[in-house]
Amino acid sequence: MEARFVDWLLDRIPSDPRLEVPPGDDAAVLRPPAMRRTVVAVDMLTAGVDFILGRDGATPDRVGHKALAVNLSDLAAMAARPEAALVAVALPKREATAIGEGLLAGLEPLAAAHGVTLAGGDTNTWDGPLVVSVTVIGSVPPGAAWRRDGARPGDFLVVTGPCGGSLLGRHLDVRPRVGEALEIASRFTVHAAIDISDGLSLDLSRLMKASAVRGVIDLDRVPIHDDARRRAAADGIEPLVHALTDGEDFELLLAMPPADARGLVAAPPAGLSPAIIGEVTAGIGLASRAPDGTLAPLEAGGWMHGGDG
Amino acid sequence: MEARFVDWLLDRIPSDPRLEVPPGDDAAVLRPPAMRRTVVAVDMLTAGVDFILGRDGATPDRVGHKALAVNLSDLAAMAARPEAALVAVALPKREATAIGEGLLAGLEPLAAAHGVTLAGGDTNTWDGPLVVSVTVIGSVPPGAAWRRDGARPGDFLVVTGPCGGSLLGRHLDVRPRVGEALEIASRFTVHAAIDISDGLSLDLSRLMKASAVRGVIDLDRVPIHDDARRRAAADGIEPLVHALTDGEDFELLLAMPPADARGLVAAPPAGLSPAIIGEVTAGIGLASRAPDGTLAPLEAGGWMHGGDG
Repeated sequence: MEARFVDWLLDRIPSDPRLEVPPGDDAAVLRPPAMRRTVVAVDMLTAGVDFILGRDGATPDRVGHKALAVNLSDLAAMAARPEAALVAVALPKREATAIGEGLLAGLEPLAAAHGVTLAGGDTNTWDGPLVVSVTVIGSVPPGAAWRRDGARPGDFLVVTGPCGGSLLGRHLDVRPRVGEALEIASRFTVHAAIDISDGLSLDLSRLMKASAVRGVIDLDRVPIHDDARRRAAADGIEPLVHALTDGEDFELLLAMPPADARGLVAAPPAGLSPAIIGEVTAGIGLASRAPDGTLAPLEAGGWMHGGDG
Repeated sequence: MEARFVDWLLDRIPSDPRLEVPPGDDAAVLRPPAMRRTVVAVDMLTAGVDFILGRDGATPDRVGHKALAVNLSDLAAMAARPEAALVAVALPKREATAIGEGLLAGLEPLAAAHGVTLAGGDTNTWDGPLVVSVTVIGSVPPGAAWRRDGARPGDFLVVTGPCGGSLLGRHLDVRPRVGEALEIASRFTVHAAIDISDGLSLDLSRLMKASAVRGVIDLDRVPIHDDARRRAAADGIEPLVHALTDGEDFELLLAMPPADARGLVAAPPAGLSPAIIGEVTAGIGLASRAPDGTLAPLEAGGWMHGGDG
């Protein structure tokens, strides 16, 4: 593990009691919280795919923020408390320092806001485009992690906020629902959860597939973000389609017993606007339900990570 | 966290009791060993810098092996026991599947050999060159991690094997000294440790700097790898210079009390050929010591990760 990326931090960040060995050693040594499971996620962002540096407001600091935020969102989807993060980067040689410092400027405040120790990293420079890979480590009580495979027929489907149109800029300013997830976990029963990275319908289909059940969406209850309406006005595609398929909302999608879902909507964590958007039934795949109760198959759409294309 | 890279594994790898949630969820949930610290390292390999795909035998499987091996070497340098790994990749679009499967073919046997659970990952495809970022998670008893800042005047310096010339192919077939490190930790006192990734003299200078001491190398005692002699025959640079500066040896460099150093050399772990190459004194930097005891300053040389170049 190369220490330079961490070296930059050392002047600015007080030493953290959760680190047994100073940052910059071959590996980070963390004091894990007693009697908790370790939760780990990794997400890699690549220039040209997840952002285009210098275009649409994609500055290095916002990329740094996003790189950590999407990982924190993965922990939120497990109801895990974040503890530490490691940052591996491939920096374009010509602007390595400026970009690296920009990334840090975005990473640090978000890490601090969530009590995350920047525990290590690996700095590389090359002739290629910017790549940022963040690993986050968190913890959760044994058996308490939200999972994808726990949804049951009869559960209500809840989304924690309006969806769609994130490409207008929100996708760079991801607000991971970390604290909100912990509060929900402490107050309610959640059978299954996922964060919406690739689109509400696609991520719901993943949740349903993992649980071997069917998701029924009441299309008129899907909360539509203002950004989805703005995109719709520009491209002529229905706002609801944007809400169902745009991706990068980083709201949480939860399968909960009806009473818990109603309780959450009635008294949500501060700043959260959750909505019940449907329910879980026996079966597979997704269906839409019209106000009169008519069911129709629903195609899961959204951002698919490409390959061999 | 995207699941496809993990999906490929699921058919082949039995579920692991250390994972509380099936691979492919938003994050991996690990059961950390009781009463141990968590040790985490990350290393990113980039095409064109760490390897050139298709050249000098750099096939995807060897790159996959190396990407995990260099991380395991970081854990070895902490005397940590590896537990799990996460693999984030940016695959060139046109050959994404072939390269991804090649990577796995190299990763899996090494993971299995070290009892490492492949716990998760993130698969991306793009128009850029191959990037592989591996995060490894291990454990160590509280206070038992080898660190860089513990070397003391009077310690002997030990290297666990011959150095130099790894570019002739050995740099792809890294044999991380994981088991050897655990055995050494169980039998001897080690005050400080680092693995040789960027060159014996450069990594030694890092060890000495972190410990605020001086490293004195007996140049005639540095074990020189046959590959260093082969490179020397080709390029006319002394074998000793190759041994001191080539890098990617992934042997361990240890600062140990003299009796422990002698004990290790007298009865090393199976397959290891450690050598005492010098000692630690008060002061800073590096010095070379001639057989007659004459000291001369020694410049640390080796592979520096570039930037703004």
